[in-house]
Amino acid sequence: VENTAKILLDLFLIFAAAKVAGEIFNRLKQPVVVGEILAGMLIGPSLLGWIGHSSFLDIFAELGVIFLLFTVGLQTDLTEMVRVGKHALAVAVGGVTLPFILGYALMAALNRPLVESLFVATALVATSVGITARVLADLGKLQTRAARVILGAAVVDDILGMIVLAVVIGISRGKFSLLSTLLVAIEAIAFTAFVVVLGRKAIGTFSHKIPKLHMPQPAFALGLALCLGLSAAASYIGLAAIIGAFLAGLVLAEATEATRLRQNMEPIYEFLVPIFFVITGSRMDLPKLFTPPIISLTLLVVLVAVIGKFLGCGAAAFRLGRHDATAVGVGMIPRGEVGIVVAMVGLSRGVISGDLFSVVISMSILTTLMTPPLLRLLLARRPLVV
Amino acid sequence: VENTAKILLDLFLIFAAAKVAGEIFNRLKQPVVVGEILAGMLIGPSLLGWIGHSSFLDIFAELGVIFLLFTVGLQTDLTEMVRVGKHALAVAVGGVTLPFILGYALMAALNRPLVESLFVATALVATSVGITARVLADLGKLQTRAARVILGAAVVDDILGMIVLAVVIGISRGKFSLLSTLLVAIEAIAFTAFVVVLGRKAIGTFSHKIPKLHMPQPAFALGLALCLGLSAAASYIGLAAIIGAFLAGLVLAEATEATRLRQNMEPIYEFLVPIFFVITGSRMDLPKLFTPPIISLTLLVVLVAVIGKFLGCGAAAFRLGRHDATAVGVGMIPRGEVGIVVAMVGLSRGVISGDLFSVVISMSILTTLMTPPLLRLLLARRPLVV
Repeated sequence: VENTAKILLDLFLIFAAAKVAGEIFNRLKQPVVVGEILAGMLIGPSLLGWIGHSSFLDIFAELGVIFLLFTVGLQTDLTEMVRVGKHALAVAVGGVTLPFILGYALMAALNRPLVESLFVATALVATSVGITARVLADLGKLQTRAARVILGAAVVDDILGMIVLAVVIGISRGKFSLLSTLLVAIEAIAFTAFVVVLGRKAIGTFSHKIPKLHMPQPAFALGLALCLGLSAAASYIGLAAIIGAFLAGLVLAEATEATRLRQNMEPIYEFLVPIFFVITGSRMDLPKLFTPPIISLTLLVVLVAVIGKFLGCGAAAFRLGRHDATAVGVGMIPRGEVGIVVAMVGLSRGVISGDLFSVVISMSILTTLMTPPLLRLLLARRPLVV
Repeated sequence: VENTAKILLDLFLIFAAAKVAGEIFNRLKQPVVVGEILAGMLIGPSLLGWIGHSSFLDIFAELGVIFLLFTVGLQTDLTEMVRVGKHALAVAVGGVTLPFILGYALMAALNRPLVESLFVATALVATSVGITARVLADLGKLQTRAARVILGAAVVDDILGMIVLAVVIGISRGKFSLLSTLLVAIEAIAFTAFVVVLGRKAIGTFSHKIPKLHMPQPAFALGLALCLGLSAAASYIGLAAIIGAFLAGLVLAEATEATRLRQNMEPIYEFLVPIFFVITGSRMDLPKLFTPPIISLTLLVVLVAVIGKFLGCGAAAFRLGRHDATAVGVGMIPRGEVGIVVAMVGLSRGVISGDLFSVVISMSILTTLMTPPLLRLLLARRPLVV
């Protein structure tokens, strides 16, 4: 019983801290996710010590990130992805490949273990396009060609990032060999393909029957069940639970009831996702983060993250002309949520050390904070091609 | 990590079972809560054994019941309560007193321990008026005098039930004496009065400022924070967490944003509340329940539950005339969720034994199932006074 009281108090403190931070960061027009992580750093063991470590909180963080990725999947339009065409595809592939190679090379040069290096490289892969989309929308630039390429590339990018993560998790489970990597890659791709192909078929066949069910909010009930079920399935076959959640969202994004499902997910999102980010922030080892070696390492990782995306995406977009290609390169820089999620997966599996975890979170925060001013500066000088 | 996979699988199985049961019971026009409990009995250790006992599931059940009582509070209109007048108040008091006394007397006669007897008596106190309201609405009788008395009495009844529960929990913590009971009663009433008076004042002062906040869905965020905060506070002072949640809902029901808050709570409710009832069902000890002594005990408790409410409420409503008073007596019979919640509180505190827990759940199910046909039969013979 005392246990229950403690967990309720923890949940209250975490949720309240997240909302206060959200209010402040909304007023400052800064990304709320950064506020939530800072709130976690504040109430976590490094500073105030109001919340500690507990396996119960881990479960709530896990559910938070599952619903985060489910929502990301729900907002990913596979049909749109096919349509955005070769520019977006090239930008996505360039923006996944170069940061991964540079990130891995940096870690290897620092003599970090293989699996840890792979996790850091993976955290550099996926763009969190929400920040960029917000800035472009604020400037009224969402209808430009560069914006469409950025948004399309970010979708492909999410899917590629999830596959890379699945492969890296697979490698982290066993001894590394070319054969085992190949097998894991096949497993990850097979799971993805199986769920997407079968899921789209099932949605196509049964989607119109959902509103005829007698339970309240049938689309929401089926969506949540699919999300939990695929998360559990992904966990059991050794992938990350979030990969199952993401695929569940991806499949359901095609359903006729998708809009209502997205609306119904909002309160669940507002309840559990901030809990994930606050707990993430509370895991940061601040005294260690502010030591010279870790500060240097952070700066190096940020440099690799920025250069990797900027060059990888910018070069792939060269046909758009120098100015538009530059905008695409800058717009793809923020790592935000996805980089953080990868770091948390690595930390909870014990394959990424506490200091490197803090470095990756800092990288996500810094790339997210730097993009809006850079993008505004760039677009103030010259408009984009519509 | 394996732990996470197991918990996700458990949550998936529980949620899916709840929704399948909900679909079936909706089609059969039977109370969904009964379906969810039966689903829990089916997948629990007594039958299929798909889910077992885990402290993680306990926390989800606890959150489910917290949001259940928060929602009940949100739907309780204190102003309306003051207005329904003396009939409803008399019915509520009669319907709380007689079942409590009869329930306690029965348990004492069977030589059950004091605290256990008090818990069973408390489980007989609160009417779950949802079933009755549904039947009256289906028959187009919600605008009758008897219906208004039933609905008004059920509101007062909830509040009295929560206070009785708080006192009984207080008694269960220490040695029983008249003085300690008095102190506990004062603590429970003081907590309730403090929250309600201060809360209504705060809502009156700040309610119009809520929509001006910059966070998304501010009413929902504040509501959830208040619910978690008061639940934790109630736990820490030794009351049940649900009492805090109920009071949080009660206070927020007065806010101008209450309608939106209720809407936003729906997905959280649909996600977590069924989990509570499935887990409750999974705790039923079926092999033991179907032994002659326990069957007899169940029948006795159901008898006391029905007679206590019927006579207690019916007698208090005698001024409405015999027919209307009978309808009020029948309408107040179902115990539903609230009786189940009391039984779970007792079980989780270790003061109510497994067999008596199963008996109380059965009582809740049976009184809930018997009311609709009884009420329809009664109203088919003669209409109520409008």
